[in-house]
Amino acid sequence: MVILQQRETKSEVMIAAVDLFYTKGYSATSIREISARAGVNVATVSYYFAGKQGLLEECLVAFFEKYLGVLEKVANSEQLQHNPTRSSMMEAALLLIDFQQQNHRFARFAWREVTMDSQMVREMTSCYLRKEQYVWKLLLAQDIEKGISIKISPSFFLIQLTSMISMPFLQSQTIQELWNLNPSEKMFTRLYSNILKEWFLGVTCESSIVLR
Amino acid sequence: MVILQQRETKSEVMIAAVDLFYTKGYSATSIREISARAGVNVATVSYYFAGKQGLLEECLVAFFEKYLGVLEKVANSEQLQHNPTRSSMMEAALLLIDFQQQNHRFARFAWREVTMDSQMVREMTSCYLRKEQYVWKLLLAQDIEKGISIKISPSFFLIQLTSMISMPFLQSQTIQELWNLNPSEKMFTRLYSNILKEWFLGVTCESSIVLR
Repeated sequence: MVILQQRETKSEVMIAAVDLFYTKGYSATSIREISARAGVNVATVSYYFAGKQGLLEECLVAFFEKYLGVLEKVANSEQLQHNPTRSSMMEAALLLIDFQQQNHRFARFAWREVTMDSQMVREMTSCYLRKEQYVWKLLLAQDIEKGISIKISPSFFLIQLTSMISMPFLQSQTIQELWNLNPSEKMFTRLYSNILKEWFLGVTCESSIVLR
Repeated sequence: MVILQQRETKSEVMIAAVDLFYTKGYSATSIREISARAGVNVATVSYYFAGKQGLLEECLVAFFEKYLGVLEKVANSEQLQHNPTRSSMMEAALLLIDFQQQNHRFARFAWREVTMDSQMVREMTSCYLRKEQYVWKLLLAQDIEKGISIKISPSFFLIQLTSMISMPFLQSQTIQELWNLNPSEKMFTRLYSNILKEWFLGVTCESSIVLR
């Protein structure tokens, strides 16, 4: 499930880029700095990626492809093998939290990029976000068929659910600094998953559904 | 309650700066561009602010001072005039959502800056975030005295509450693009406040408390 194998040069470059883009911002980061941090020469970076923009795009694609993959897998497996006692949405939500914990640098970086309104990033991510929205609507429909009903407006429900899934990673800095909790640790995500389940039970009706 | 009077030159420069910092990022924005957007000359910007960094700091201070002001007012007024049938935390939460709706550009900008780990911004904001955390703990204590009990861990409760308060403004781009909802409009914040109340009732015990 981990996006990249640490050993590969290309992966090392992407990890260095994600860290630097995150800390310094995209425009303030140079290919030279990325190469230095990854311990490779500038020519290697140019060989693997078409410049800085290509590198940014590839990092975002790496994250969103895997993220969507997790989501789609739940939707598909539910269609193949209907499980009436388990919420598809919560199944997906908990897997996505685990996935992000395992790839917390990428998650933190990707979600912050999404809050920007730089045209380049938006053109790239809006396609993924639309796909994500589509799959959530599918999962919601599956849950409704299982007899789960949502007490609040479906749009607001999905906005809240998706933002709760990304929140610990987007705000990991603040959570660490103020609360001494670390969203990149398994301990945190286990507790946080329980919070999410509590919330889900509060805004839905149907007590017979088992949350993983 | 609105942070700045539109008419003043200084305010116009700050609004232009917030928009450009938000869209292009801090490093990619020049004083020249800010001046051009505000319709003033470069010397005027230098006269009012000590360079680009001074401008960034002043924009963040303007937001967080007012934000904290709203929060502290609720805590203080509760100490002066105890109201046992109203949750102090929800009172503050709903006022903060209104405040941010009225200052949505500043809110969107400030919360995104907080997700960055640029040292300059963090040194500045961590002081405000600590103060904010302190006041929330006060409000929580006031609510506990009123007989409200929290079903989940207090830390996770406050993390979730504060992130729900900033979320629509931090993620306003995505919400607009995917859901055709606009967090800068009063209509949105009214609906969103109800969602927050639903959540609060779900994670607390005490049905006699009136939510504004």
